[in-house]
Amino acid sequence: MRILIRYGKRNEYLHQKVSTLKMKYPHIDISIDHESEYNNLENVDLLVTNSIISKAEIDSSNILKYLIIPFTGVNQLPLDELDQKGIKVINSHINSRYVAEKAIALALALLGKIVELDNNLRIGNWKHSTWTSIYEMKCGIIGMGEIGKKIINHLIPFECQINTLERYKNKLQSNFNYYESIKDVCLNSDIVFVSLPLTNETKNIINGDILYSMKDKYIINVGRGDVIEEEALYNALKNNILKGAGLDVWYQYPQSGSVTYPSKFPFHEFKNIVISPHCGGGASRCRSEEIDGVMEKIEAFIQGEEINNVINTTKKY
Amino acid sequence: MRILIRYGKRNEYLHQKVSTLKMKYPHIDISIDHESEYNNLENVDLLVTNSIISKAEIDSSNILKYLIIPFTGVNQLPLDELDQKGIKVINSHINSRYVAEKAIALALALLGKIVELDNNLRIGNWKHSTWTSIYEMKCGIIGMGEIGKKIINHLIPFECQINTLERYKNKLQSNFNYYESIKDVCLNSDIVFVSLPLTNETKNIINGDILYSMKDKYIINVGRGDVIEEEALYNALKNNILKGAGLDVWYQYPQSGSVTYPSKFPFHEFKNIVISPHCGGGASRCRSEEIDGVMEKIEAFIQGEEINNVINTTKKY
Repeated sequence: MRILIRYGKRNEYLHQKVSTLKMKYPHIDISIDHESEYNNLENVDLLVTNSIISKAEIDSSNILKYLIIPFTGVNQLPLDELDQKGIKVINSHINSRYVAEKAIALALALLGKIVELDNNLRIGNWKHSTWTSIYEMKCGIIGMGEIGKKIINHLIPFECQINTLERYKNKLQSNFNYYESIKDVCLNSDIVFVSLPLTNETKNIINGDILYSMKDKYIINVGRGDVIEEEALYNALKNNILKGAGLDVWYQYPQSGSVTYPSKFPFHEFKNIVISPHCGGGASRCRSEEIDGVMEKIEAFIQGEEINNVINTTKKY
Repeated sequence: MRILIRYGKRNEYLHQKVSTLKMKYPHIDISIDHESEYNNLENVDLLVTNSIISKAEIDSSNILKYLIIPFTGVNQLPLDELDQKGIKVINSHINSRYVAEKAIALALALLGKIVELDNNLRIGNWKHSTWTSIYEMKCGIIGMGEIGKKIINHLIPFECQINTLERYKNKLQSNFNYYESIKDVCLNSDIVFVSLPLTNETKNIINGDILYSMKDKYIINVGRGDVIEEEALYNALKNNILKGAGLDVWYQYPQSGSVTYPSKFPFHEFKNIVISPHCGGGASRCRSEEIDGVMEKIEAFIQGEEINNVINTTKKY
């Protein structure tokens, strides 16, 4: 049995954990990428990766049963090809609480003017310090996975009214407000939290029609950039339709360490937004928790048990 | 009966509310400062003020029974002189939830690197995005008034351990950790929230002895600047003993609109802090809620009822 880990090459904690696993299961071939002789996926039973996997690599696999990614979003994977080969994709929701924390931090920073007031006071300017409280606000939640549910946990002590979609009603509290459409959720909320995965169905689902109707409302996105229509979001902010935005997820990402703006539109010039470099899952302790989760799954596989969190190949999340 | 309001001269909401009150009680003389002929407090029964009151003014009062301030902190008032004249001071805790919100916003911004990452991404820099989560942290609460209790409400969904003083034990949950001294609370916490009033007893109560022991810990202050020893706080941050601070309250305040740094020490040069211009109570809706509170108290006085929130002149808060 061969297990290949193409992830965390320089992570000491991962190396420790893999050593322990090797001692426990000496008959299993377990390698971390850089010390392995593999250049394709032939004879690999289980692959752990946080990078894009090519169609050629998938073709080269003959016995691959599982592909484990240590985080949540699977939108960069060729899910149809993996499905055709019968390879199951496993993800993890271990970082959901940190993404929810980032959503709340961005919302409080945006409404509380934390960035602007810090920058001002550093040059001795105390003015314009009136800010907007989130207490008793009407909060829309679009995306009701682990992140959405945890965002609600944090909003309850702020005595917020929770608005979401009718179809989540059976798994949530009855005192929330339920609406048929995303547009209705947005129009009945003061601030909208978006934590949707990116799929064919969710791409641009928050479109110009919705955004241009959101006069004086706030939007927070910690899901994926492309679920909100890029140009419409830019225009809604530029024309002061939206009152503000807190954005952790983007439309352009750096290829290497070079200077890269997060969109082809100059969002970075706006004063009415707080921006963040897609680091909702980047809490320092998150990496070791990810690795613990991956190790549990590998061990379940070795012992012939079911592995949790298999991606639904139809829904693609 | 004469009621004088030296507060909110230009606030339309206050003028509306006062007009309503005058219509309801036409026999009572109620004035807002700039439309009044008073230049001393002679024949005034009740004074509302948000400014400093001089000892000469107190001397000039002959029948003054109540002094109402629309916010919480009374440290700028000559409490001994007021007490000698038998004038009761009334404050308000109406802004406590907003001060608690500011404390949480500062903590999430500090640990989540919200200011630094926003400033960096605006110049196309995505690096160093690893941040520290507040989940499961040990949180010390120093000051257990309305603000402290509300801070705890917000920390519970983060699954934090709450540490505070033994003497609050009878009014709090049994699953918190209780310590005899402020130093013990600080040394057993990862992050310490300070919401103490400023009195003779609390001035510099968090001193160098405590601060220099707080290696790799965070401190958030939304009480009053002077409860933390200024130079020791500066040194603890400068020498990287403290890992960081979120500070809304200060040691120097602007006299007019001029450029004023918040301390004689250059805190504003530090990267490991998030700073804010004493605006915990500055949420936009807070002013109208303050006015509603003042009006309720005036009406209680007119109707001969007890007024809530009389300051304890011994404890001075």
